[in-house]
Amino acid sequence: MYRSLPLKDIHITDPFFTARIDTARQVTIPYMWETLNDRIPGVAPSHCIENFEIAAGLKQGEFHGFWFQDTDLWKWLEGVGYSLATHPDAELEKTADAAIDLAEKAQQPDGYLDTYYIIKGLDKRFTNLRDNHEMYVAGHMFEAAVAYYQATGKRKILDMACRVADCFDANFGPEEGKLHGYPGHQEIELGLAKLYQVTGEERYIKLAKYFLDVRGHQPHYYDEESLKRGDKPSFWGQLRYPQAPYTYNQAHKPVREQKEANGHSVRQLYMLSGMADVGEMAGDPTLVEAAETVFQNIIHKQMYITGGVGSTHEGEAFSFDYDLPPERCYTETCASIALAMTASRLNRIQPNSCYGDTVERALYNGILSGVSLDGTKYFYINPLEVWPDRCLRRQDMAVDPERQGWFGCACCPPNVLRTLTGLGAYIYAANEDGLLVDQYIASQVKTHACGQDIAFTMEANFPWQGNVKITMDSATTFKLMLRKPYWAANHSLTVNGEKVEAALENGYLILDRAFAAGDVIELALPMEVRFMNASSRVPNYVGKTALMRGPVVYCLEQVDNGGQLWNLAVETGSAQVEHHADLLCGVTTITCQGQREAGDSDLYTQQLPDVQPQQLTFVPYYAWGNRGMGEMMVWVHRK
Amino acid sequence: MYRSLPLKDIHITDPFFTARIDTARQVTIPYMWETLNDRIPGVAPSHCIENFEIAAGLKQGEFHGFWFQDTDLWKWLEGVGYSLATHPDAELEKTADAAIDLAEKAQQPDGYLDTYYIIKGLDKRFTNLRDNHEMYVAGHMFEAAVAYYQATGKRKILDMACRVADCFDANFGPEEGKLHGYPGHQEIELGLAKLYQVTGEERYIKLAKYFLDVRGHQPHYYDEESLKRGDKPSFWGQLRYPQAPYTYNQAHKPVREQKEANGHSVRQLYMLSGMADVGEMAGDPTLVEAAETVFQNIIHKQMYITGGVGSTHEGEAFSFDYDLPPERCYTETCASIALAMTASRLNRIQPNSCYGDTVERALYNGILSGVSLDGTKYFYINPLEVWPDRCLRRQDMAVDPERQGWFGCACCPPNVLRTLTGLGAYIYAANEDGLLVDQYIASQVKTHACGQDIAFTMEANFPWQGNVKITMDSATTFKLMLRKPYWAANHSLTVNGEKVEAALENGYLILDRAFAAGDVIELALPMEVRFMNASSRVPNYVGKTALMRGPVVYCLEQVDNGGQLWNLAVETGSAQVEHHADLLCGVTTITCQGQREAGDSDLYTQQLPDVQPQQLTFVPYYAWGNRGMGEMMVWVHRK
Repeated sequence: MYRSLPLKDIHITDPFFTARIDTARQVTIPYMWETLNDRIPGVAPSHCIENFEIAAGLKQGEFHGFWFQDTDLWKWLEGVGYSLATHPDAELEKTADAAIDLAEKAQQPDGYLDTYYIIKGLDKRFTNLRDNHEMYVAGHMFEAAVAYYQATGKRKILDMACRVADCFDANFGPEEGKLHGYPGHQEIELGLAKLYQVTGEERYIKLAKYFLDVRGHQPHYYDEESLKRGDKPSFWGQLRYPQAPYTYNQAHKPVREQKEANGHSVRQLYMLSGMADVGEMAGDPTLVEAAETVFQNIIHKQMYITGGVGSTHEGEAFSFDYDLPPERCYTETCASIALAMTASRLNRIQPNSCYGDTVERALYNGILSGVSLDGTKYFYINPLEVWPDRCLRRQDMAVDPERQGWFGCACCPPNVLRTLTGLGAYIYAANEDGLLVDQYIASQVKTHACGQDIAFTMEANFPWQGNVKITMDSATTFKLMLRKPYWAANHSLTVNGEKVEAALENGYLILDRAFAAGDVIELALPMEVRFMNASSRVPNYVGKTALMRGPVVYCLEQVDNGGQLWNLAVETGSAQVEHHADLLCGVTTITCQGQREAGDSDLYTQQLPDVQPQQLTFVPYYAWGNRGMGEMMVWVHRK
Repeated sequence: MYRSLPLKDIHITDPFFTARIDTARQVTIPYMWETLNDRIPGVAPSHCIENFEIAAGLKQGEFHGFWFQDTDLWKWLEGVGYSLATHPDAELEKTADAAIDLAEKAQQPDGYLDTYYIIKGLDKRFTNLRDNHEMYVAGHMFEAAVAYYQATGKRKILDMACRVADCFDANFGPEEGKLHGYPGHQEIELGLAKLYQVTGEERYIKLAKYFLDVRGHQPHYYDEESLKRGDKPSFWGQLRYPQAPYTYNQAHKPVREQKEANGHSVRQLYMLSGMADVGEMAGDPTLVEAAETVFQNIIHKQMYITGGVGSTHEGEAFSFDYDLPPERCYTETCASIALAMTASRLNRIQPNSCYGDTVERALYNGILSGVSLDGTKYFYINPLEVWPDRCLRRQDMAVDPERQGWFGCACCPPNVLRTLTGLGAYIYAANEDGLLVDQYIASQVKTHACGQDIAFTMEANFPWQGNVKITMDSATTFKLMLRKPYWAANHSLTVNGEKVEAALENGYLILDRAFAAGDVIELALPMEVRFMNASSRVPNYVGKTALMRGPVVYCLEQVDNGGQLWNLAVETGSAQVEHHADLLCGVTTITCQGQREAGDSDLYTQQLPDVQPQQLTFVPYYAWGNRGMGEMMVWVHRK
């Protein structure tokens, strides 16, 4: 069993990510705090802090916002916790402490803490688990509590979280007299797992396992609950999935019987994350296996090349195998984050490079595309092809052609925040004798792992160059495991300049040996431009190619190549690579020979179009849409 | 000014259409009558006749169905009228007479006849013209009345129609004290025009012109009407088209200022039909010009190759120029019929082959595809590409992968019925000295036109063969005008076997001369297989081709070519043509050399797919989906 190295032990020095993390810390955290307090002119008020004030009895008023509005605070606090772990900031800590004090005032005597029901009426709590997110809110609160406690050592929020967990434990479980329900939006499972890890309280992991065990059984809890409320058939449960009610919530059958990804993508992947955590911590391999089955279905049949998942905006959901339309995807930023969460958890149980590969794919593509380079604008939906006219003028398109400033349902911005400030957790993991290097994000490590103090420095310039250099800062003996990415056709590994033939185990290059202080391990991974093809089972991409270099997916933008990108075709094999320090905060571009079909023919004609040669410029997908509104395309015709 | 020849004067003998018209007469008319009477087990009750019984005071009960449910009867009756004109049927006439008697009992003293408001409360009539279709119902009643009167000579339904029209005339118009409103769903305009033609009553054409003249002016009638009702902003008017309210209804600006097709396709095209009729009959060329402008926009920028129109199911609507996605179209059967209606009306004003070309394109493709070969199942939506998995498993798809038996909103089946039984109206038109042959549908004509009795026989075997033979049955002198279709690269015209160089005027070959009885005019139009390309302005079809032969668009079906049609590519220029009398009720197929990409690769791979040669079989688009559910594709990769 591997664990991520503590955030405090990792000092990220990566040229690519440092600026982004700094933006998250210096821009996003204060900006979000202002939005939570409704102090940004022109931005729709969040009411989040106000709801806590009302719930705490400090103010009169009604609840406003979504029923999960509390999570805006909890996700912010989680991001703040990760940030404080590596960048102490007394002023920020004071602000966070005050927010925690406020939330504590709203907490009920039995531990319950959800401002929606505290304000609307506690008699209604636990009556609509399917739709109303109480457990989802709690899960985010637990994650925030653990993050903040680990960063600051302050127990107050952790104790509050335990009281919330105790309240759920008192009300839910297999025992008679308790409710036998489970969340409509999964999240509490992995929150409880974190709380268990920190507190050692067995009841928490047992409760998390219970929520997974009872899920999707018949007679259906959501139906019974709904009947008790006297509801008409639910729009979400019935109308959207008439053939399989509760597929949307992954509650259409017991979790161990689910073999394919279904329904709401973030719910699906939070559930898999929870199944991995709980399966491991509660010692139930059947949960891990079930999570693994669905995860493999996703990465082999339902994942976009960008690491985006969720092929349809209806239900923000997975659709079915090989259904991956480029301009009608949902591919929510949060879902790619959740995919990375699932992958890194499965990796800690049974390391395999496919997990780190997936984290990397999502991170450098479908997650980073969710936020503008200046850190202030966001995509929920990350399409692989955008024709702005279609987005703006068709009533059936959900895709925004431009990133937006803030969302009423603000799930993605804080999710990006916590991913960036907590990035260290994805880089390394260790168990008693081995240390995994999963992401080549430059950083200095000083930690206790594999039974000894370990210190080293990793230099890298990902995603632009494939050379990694690890310098040992102390004498140690352990098993160093370096992920060999799927995109590297070969590799060269040296120790102190001498070539080493390392064994390849589950996709990791293994150096199991003693290291002296000053030892230099160098891994060279060739970053060739790769012209990727999609499986012929996918209908949209025949005759098209997507360019990748290292982990980065590239795209064409109108600003570089002119409009009507669909008329362009690329000559595969003609790639020129160049780094531009001043373009899009520093990117390596690819230029290729290509052509453009054109001509102003009739709508339908026997005449073949004119073809003109044109040089094509590809930029990293994550950086698209930072130079004004225009067309974008990942999958391009092959010449 | 040209007029269609009376249906009674045309005896259709066409091998292609006769069977279809027979099916309409023998199967559809009785089946529909049973559905109107709720006597088909397993089919959702229509309540249409029951609504009339309740409105007539013969029965107690509530109104059921859509607020335009009456049109089920009126469209049926229109189709019956056309059928009786050429195929007298005493039993059917008796049934129809009884239905008319019933409707007459429901008609109010002031002429009002709409069972929805008669049952729901007459005080509410005329209070929601935008949504509630009173004028649409009346328009269909007028069309039915004229058709039935012209077929049977019975005035009762015509008199009833005049009383309905008088009621509208008494309540609507520019005069003070009258309402200044106009229909949310256009149709009454062309109904009034027909009524004017038959009755000569000037008030009717004046009223029709008024409805067009006041449309879309500010302050907006729908807003004022809505305020009077105390409504919240309308879902249809506001939510769907927030930037341009009432675009959906083509009421966003005055009709003469509208330059592009917009909003609900059938509304748009019924309006253009009405504008053509009213412009001509009321002597206002500005109305005709405005209709022509929008019509040209449609056929050059917003029409599918099948003659389908309406690129989005949201609002069953036009979207914008060159937005023509193949699997997300709406392309309602009714809209293609309405396109043909508009085209034939514009043609009667200023003949040009582009109109007959459009009628022909719609007729042999997007209209006929709407009905199964056995005449019992229907498509509302006629997509150009179908992947059944996507239709069935994505929640955001509106397309049915199979024709359905009947629809709650049963607009398309009766629309197909009236088109087939009234087909004669599309074939010929005449004015004082010329006779247009617009469609090469074999038929015998005995009529009075161009100031004389004219009789001739047209033999043809469209759409499979391009040879047309017209034999004069009497001595005459007139200008015979034969449409030269857009798809014919050349032509050969002979009279009594001798080659004739006929002038080509506005796309018509002109024979302005005396004909003797027994004269034989032969027109040969070569039907080559044409590999069509779409304009490079359309994003979806680069590198793809659609096969046509004569007026027929072809497609690939899974049943002939295996699944994953997207992996096929066709070698242009390799076409073999063969007629199969026993396939799909007799079709000419096209086989081509081609290839299939295949292989069971990873989802994303650098490996190029395997390519195997494969012969491809194309069948007429209109005939697809008659051999079980499977994939279909019109636009195919070019090899």
